[in-house]
Amino acid sequence: MQDRLVSLEVPRPHLIPVIKAFGILKRAAAEVNQDYGLDPKIANAIMKAADEVAEGKLNDHFPLVVWQTGSGTQTNMNVNEVISNRAIEILGGELGSKKPVHPNDHVNKSQSSNDTFPTAMHIAAAIEVHEVLLPGLQKLHDALEAKSKEFDQIIKIGRTHTQDAVPLTLGQEFSGYVQQVKYATTRIKAAMPRIYELAAGGTAVGTGLNTRIGFAEKVAAKVAVLTGLPFVTAPNKFEALAAHDALVELSGAMNTTACSLMKIANDIRFLGSGPRSGLGELILPENEPGSSIMPGKVNPTQCEAMTMVAAQVMGNHVAVTVGGSNGHFELNVFKPMMIKNVLHSARLLGDASVSFTENCVVGIQANTERISKLMNESLMLVTALNPHIGYDKAAKIAKTAHKNGSTLKFDDKFIK
Amino acid sequence: MQDRLVSLEVPRPHLIPVIKAFGILKRAAAEVNQDYGLDPKIANAIMKAADEVAEGKLNDHFPLVVWQTGSGTQTNMNVNEVISNRAIEILGGELGSKKPVHPNDHVNKSQSSNDTFPTAMHIAAAIEVHEVLLPGLQKLHDALEAKSKEFDQIIKIGRTHTQDAVPLTLGQEFSGYVQQVKYATTRIKAAMPRIYELAAGGTAVGTGLNTRIGFAEKVAAKVAVLTGLPFVTAPNKFEALAAHDALVELSGAMNTTACSLMKIANDIRFLGSGPRSGLGELILPENEPGSSIMPGKVNPTQCEAMTMVAAQVMGNHVAVTVGGSNGHFELNVFKPMMIKNVLHSARLLGDASVSFTENCVVGIQANTERISKLMNESLMLVTALNPHIGYDKAAKIAKTAHKNGSTLKFDDKFIK
Amino acid sequence: MQDRLVSLEVPRPHLIPVIKAFGILKRAAAEVNQDYGLDPKIANAIMKAADEVAEGKLNDHFPLVVWQTGSGTQTNMNVNEVISNRAIEILGGELGSKKPVHPNDHVNKSQSSNDTFPTAMHIAAAIEVHEVLLPGLQKLHDALEAKSKEFDQIIKIGRTHTQDAVPLTLGQEFSGYVQQVKYATTRIKAAMPRIYELAAGGTAVGTGLNTRIGFAEKVAAKVAVLTGLPFVTAPNKFEALAAHDALVELSGAMNTTACSLMKIANDIRFLGSGPRSGLGELILPENEPGSSIMPGKVNPTQCEAMTMVAAQVMGNHVAVTVGGSNGHFELNVFKPMMIKNVLHSARLLGDASVSFTENCVVGIQANTERISKLMNESLMLVTALNPHIGYDKAAKIAKTAHKNGSTLKFDDKFIK
Amino acid sequence: MQDRLVSLEVPRPHLIPVIKAFGILKRAAAEVNQDYGLDPKIANAIMKAADEVAEGKLNDHFPLVVWQTGSGTQTNMNVNEVISNRAIEILGGELGSKKPVHPNDHVNKSQSSNDTFPTAMHIAAAIEVHEVLLPGLQKLHDALEAKSKEFDQIIKIGRTHTQDAVPLTLGQEFSGYVQQVKYATTRIKAAMPRIYELAAGGTAVGTGLNTRIGFAEKVAAKVAVLTGLPFVTAPNKFEALAAHDALVELSGAMNTTACSLMKIANDIRFLGSGPRSGLGELILPENEPGSSIMPGKVNPTQCEAMTMVAAQVMGNHVAVTVGGSNGHFELNVFKPMMIKNVLHSARLLGDASVSFTENCVVGIQANTERISKLMNESLMLVTALNPHIGYDKAAKIAKTAHKNGSTLKFDDKFIK
Repeated sequence: MQDRLVSLEVPRPHLIPVIKAFGILKRAAAEVNQDYGLDPKIANAIMKAADEVAEGKLNDHFPLVVWQTGSGTQTNMNVNEVISNRAIEILGGELGSKKPVHPNDHVNKSQSSNDTFPTAMHIAAAIEVHEVLLPGLQKLHDALEAKSKEFDQIIKIGRTHTQDAVPLTLGQEFSGYVQQVKYATTRIKAAMPRIYELAAGGTAVGTGLNTRIGFAEKVAAKVAVLTGLPFVTAPNKFEALAAHDALVELSGAMNTTACSLMKIANDIRFLGSGPRSGLGELILPENEPGSSIMPGKVNPTQCEAMTMVAAQVMGNHVAVTVGGSNGHFELNVFKPMMIKNVLHSARLLGDASVSFTENCVVGIQANTERISKLMNESLMLVTALNPHIGYDKAAKIAKTAHKNGSTLKFDDKFIK
Repeated sequence: MQDRLVSLEVPRPHLIPVIKAFGILKRAAAEVNQDYGLDPKIANAIMKAADEVAEGKLNDHFPLVVWQTGSGTQTNMNVNEVISNRAIEILGGELGSKKPVHPNDHVNKSQSSNDTFPTAMHIAAAIEVHEVLLPGLQKLHDALEAKSKEFDQIIKIGRTHTQDAVPLTLGQEFSGYVQQVKYATTRIKAAMPRIYELAAGGTAVGTGLNTRIGFAEKVAAKVAVLTGLPFVTAPNKFEALAAHDALVELSGAMNTTACSLMKIANDIRFLGSGPRSGLGELILPENEPGSSIMPGKVNPTQCEAMTMVAAQVMGNHVAVTVGGSNGHFELNVFKPMMIKNVLHSARLLGDASVSFTENCVVGIQANTERISKLMNESLMLVTALNPHIGYDKAAKIAKTAHKNGSTLKFDDKFIK
Repeated sequence: MQDRLVSLEVPRPHLIPVIKAFGILKRAAAEVNQDYGLDPKIANAIMKAADEVAEGKLNDHFPLVVWQTGSGTQTNMNVNEVISNRAIEILGGELGSKKPVHPNDHVNKSQSSNDTFPTAMHIAAAIEVHEVLLPGLQKLHDALEAKSKEFDQIIKIGRTHTQDAVPLTLGQEFSGYVQQVKYATTRIKAAMPRIYELAAGGTAVGTGLNTRIGFAEKVAAKVAVLTGLPFVTAPNKFEALAAHDALVELSGAMNTTACSLMKIANDIRFLGSGPRSGLGELILPENEPGSSIMPGKVNPTQCEAMTMVAAQVMGNHVAVTVGGSNGHFELNVFKPMMIKNVLHSARLLGDASVSFTENCVVGIQANTERISKLMNESLMLVTALNPHIGYDKAAKIAKTAHKNGSTLKFDDKFIK
Repeated sequence: MQDRLVSLEVPRPHLIPVIKAFGILKRAAAEVNQDYGLDPKIANAIMKAADEVAEGKLNDHFPLVVWQTGSGTQTNMNVNEVISNRAIEILGGELGSKKPVHPNDHVNKSQSSNDTFPTAMHIAAAIEVHEVLLPGLQKLHDALEAKSKEFDQIIKIGRTHTQDAVPLTLGQEFSGYVQQVKYATTRIKAAMPRIYELAAGGTAVGTGLNTRIGFAEKVAAKVAVLTGLPFVTAPNKFEALAAHDALVELSGAMNTTACSLMKIANDIRFLGSGPRSGLGELILPENEPGSSIMPGKVNPTQCEAMTMVAAQVMGNHVAVTVGGSNGHFELNVFKPMMIKNVLHSARLLGDASVSFTENCVVGIQANTERISKLMNESLMLVTALNPHIGYDKAAKIAKTAHKNGSTLKFDDKFIK
């Protein structure tokens, strides 16, 4: 079990994706600064060092503090200094001398923490969405869709209000899950256009003081090339620094996704409940001994991990919301907390989707004997009589059968 | 059905309890002001008018706006004016003349919106808690406890992870619910000491400018007499105006209560699921036809109303939390919104507890035949063998029985 | 004041828009049922009665219960009965006789509460969004944009971390708000495609039992014509009944909007703080006397109403989220609670935007004297020296000036 | 800066306190099992090994998975196995042989994951509250109280609605913060009685199957001795396994604390805003250069870390709430997620309180010159005239002064 779940969060500190994003950004900025006259020797050394940051080679130099200044200034400075030192090293200079590559004057040239940190937030969020969240959801979608097809001939009792209702196929039931996951993807993608907008070029308050005309657009274009994602410069830099509505929006899409996955995982564990005293329509894969006291017990562990993840994402969303609502004037200073929660949610949902797919969904079997037994005992088939004999008479039949303990004969045409 | 639920919220606008509380406060203040020299004729007219406000006789004069100024100033002024006019009327004066009873100089004497509104919030919350919330929970507690006793000889299969587990009695299962509701009461009471603290006497910013020494203590004592609740003056008026942590705390206790009631209602609807294809251990009262299309269907309506209420209370709690965290300097200006949500939660939980008790809990029957059948088919009894043959051998037995479809013989001593 | 705010919520019970939506749906269904053979006399009477429901003429017959069964069955039955009776009346029959227009067999024909209530939820949400929310936001957007243009020559000190920063124009500061509101609209619109999908035709569990092929598509098309909104039939009815992710999504968009409006209203009240001891850069309209004890005080009432609304919407969103995550099998039974909160948020945000615009934004004036004074005292202009003399020297200049209490000369080119 | 904040979260994985608590529990259980007949040699080896777990010596053997089965079974099994192996090692046996110390039959004797994990949750939460949260709050309380006394002669303008109001002393303003933090402690302590209740002895479903009479009470007593905290056995084990209302309650108290700290930190950063264009009444310690682009800028970093922590705690609380509401039947399976968030909140609030105290509060200075200037320019002193000349005339004076730009003479007696 542990090898299936341990990877979910532990080995990947929350802000490493931001550091990686900073590497990409600093590299792009150095390229553009060179276009505007920065000494090519310095620019090239910065690019090389920044690439190493982006590749995670210098991760040990980033003590990854979330609870720092709310603008992420420490992280930006940390990045500037690490890149400056590494670039100095590349050029054979003395570490810490700030020469010939100065952390502020060269690495941070035309930039401010106030525009670089939100830029890195957006880059990191977009990469996590594309590398972890969307592929995870796609995998889950595909597995559910395969099950939906596999189960499309299995007619079963439906349940509304947790009570017996008219029949549907197990494939149809799963098709609802498929649609939920499909739309989860749609929703996340619908939030991305605002994430693709980068603050770079706004510098300290959004006016772009100390940058050059065109810097913003060029940096965004370079970042787009480096990542393969359609980044553009934010049309309004004041909004891009002072508000992080785009992160609240993306978090909202993940919150909706959490609701979807909670519903699906809940259904699957209830449909798989038993083995003797539950609904028992599904047989879930046995991943591990389920109990330290009850021998032979198997638990829906993957459903539990998934529903815990869903609850966490809903909580993360409130943290993001509170942070997002509390910006003041030209700067929102809940940045590191906000991006930490957004990245956490993206990774949790993505990783949990993969784990849930591989260790649960693909191995789900229909307990056709049980499904058939429940189906044949149901009284709700009487609903199909409504158009023929009217609601009131049909109700009378159902009530009589319930009192007598009798059953109704099933006919395939009850499933449209 | 409608007659059982319609009363839950509609006919009682959210802020009426605040108006009632204002009546009590203004009456108490007039008494104390008279002690400090206010013309007894004026004081008495104010008291009489204030009593009418407290009794709800003048409700039509309060257009009950929540989304007003965040200090509740409009409501305080509204109250001052209504009382002033009614007192003028009592004394035979001309309405609107502000003579002989001036709304600010007499009715609001020694007061400010900034201390009266929070005082009224606390009075209103305390009254709702005592008149609606705690009695509702007590009623539910008693009904669940009666059921727990009624069911104490019914042995049934336990369920952990939604999977079959070792047995317990149905009475024991219900005793868990009893404990949850009992502690809900404990939690709410634990929050009350801070609610009993009144801001009155702090006036505009907490310094008590324009009041007299002793005014604060005397008003709190009068309010305690008028309500029969142990109100005292807040030890620190700056906190009492600028923060409403006490409301966040009470809302938190109600949020915990919502979790408890969600769990209980969820369990009951699942245990009562069926009639043929669910767990079917409980038979819930049939309150109404459950479906407009499926004849004969009965739904756990009361459980659904309760779980919807629980979700609402969790949402209200976040609204209260956000409001409570956003005070500035000497005043929190989310007052009307905060108290609206606190009162809403108190009433919803109290009323829903009564409705759930009367229309569901008291009528719950155990389906002993079904319970017994599931009990006898279970494999988890093997757990009792652990101390005798060890975990590993016991697990082997259970797995073999599961594979063979065989059962284990039950022995009463498995239930300690 | 009261006349500006009282309309926000009181006179419009939460579920009236759902009743109106039901009128539209029942009318559309009757038309389609006639196409499929329903007696035209009956169909026409239903249509006429349904139109009256849609127009609000029969509102008194709907006691509007939120805390009912979680499928909204009572509301659907209530609608069926009111329409049946009114249709009987139109046809000269006997009220309550169910003849010649039966509430289940005719008004509810080819329908179930399980598909009609979610259909009405989507219709109601879409109408409120289009009639109240989007127009309110547009009005606010336009007013902020006009202010942004009006203020585009006013150079002022920027503030990051609530501390003095480099300058920008007041117009630029407002342009950030404009962008936030513009994107609020974009976000809400991005959520609508899922709202435009209607469950009608799924009947009890999503299979469409008791409907005819094509019914779903035709009803959606009729509703689209009746409302002028691009409704379509939901591609997967199982999802449309069992999950209300679309409402969670829309609520998420409104939650993001709440964050935006909280930020804007907070900024405006702080920028308008004073008159003597605050930031004092803006002069806000004086709507009412602000204090019952402090004469002459004017408060940012509209900002307070707006921020309270924002907190409420964040709370509502959590209620919707909790409800949305707790569906089971073929039905989510938190429907009335979910739509109540969605409609509440839409109306609150829409109405508050109008009130905030009319009573605050349009009347905001820049206190140019104050702005200019603060601007000239600022030390952050030194930032512009960075590219010329380097960060370290510039920092030294700023620190010296701060210690000496001296100022720096401002130059227009500091604002790019 | 980094050295002040980096310790906040990174080096202490969320569940280590749970592992430590498990060590304490397993030690206590071994002692009691020995009383009931467990071979003393085995019992002693378990005790010794368990002590090492409690001391953190074996931390490397716990890969700390949160997103596991919702009962924490993996963690309990992990603990059983680590202790079994270490005990075997102590006794000179072969690792992995399960002899002579079997992980289930000996280490887990009379226990189940279902009662040990919640027991460990409560032990861990209580220890973190006592070792981290309460001391952190106490430190903050004491520092604020010292400041309140230090500032008790400094008269300043009050602010309500963010607007100028009547005066108070800076000491009084801080006394409000002192009261908030004092009550935070009161609230957290009020939640502890339910946390002190231990589930141990309930085993699989609460009946105590496979334990001995008295086991539960004895284990709780041993844990109380080992920790010095007043643990008792839970009066109802069914509630103790199936619901974690006690954690929701504690999380609620921390949520209220977060609101308090958000308010305090917000006030302090606004009162310290400037240096030229803000309120400027407080001078905050300069901890680090505040800007990578604006030389000489100092930011309220500690306030920002604190408000980010507050937002995170509010989010964590929702995650705990959602998990707490979703238990089913005899077990809540959101255990690891719930305790992770509770421990996270406790540590964040405790550590942030210490950091905020040491790096901000103790160094706060009053800018008496600025305070005095604002005080003397204020118009709200006119309020003191109300009792003498009436509200209406006083208002006229204030408005005239505002229009003329004149000031009012201040008199000490305006501060009561």
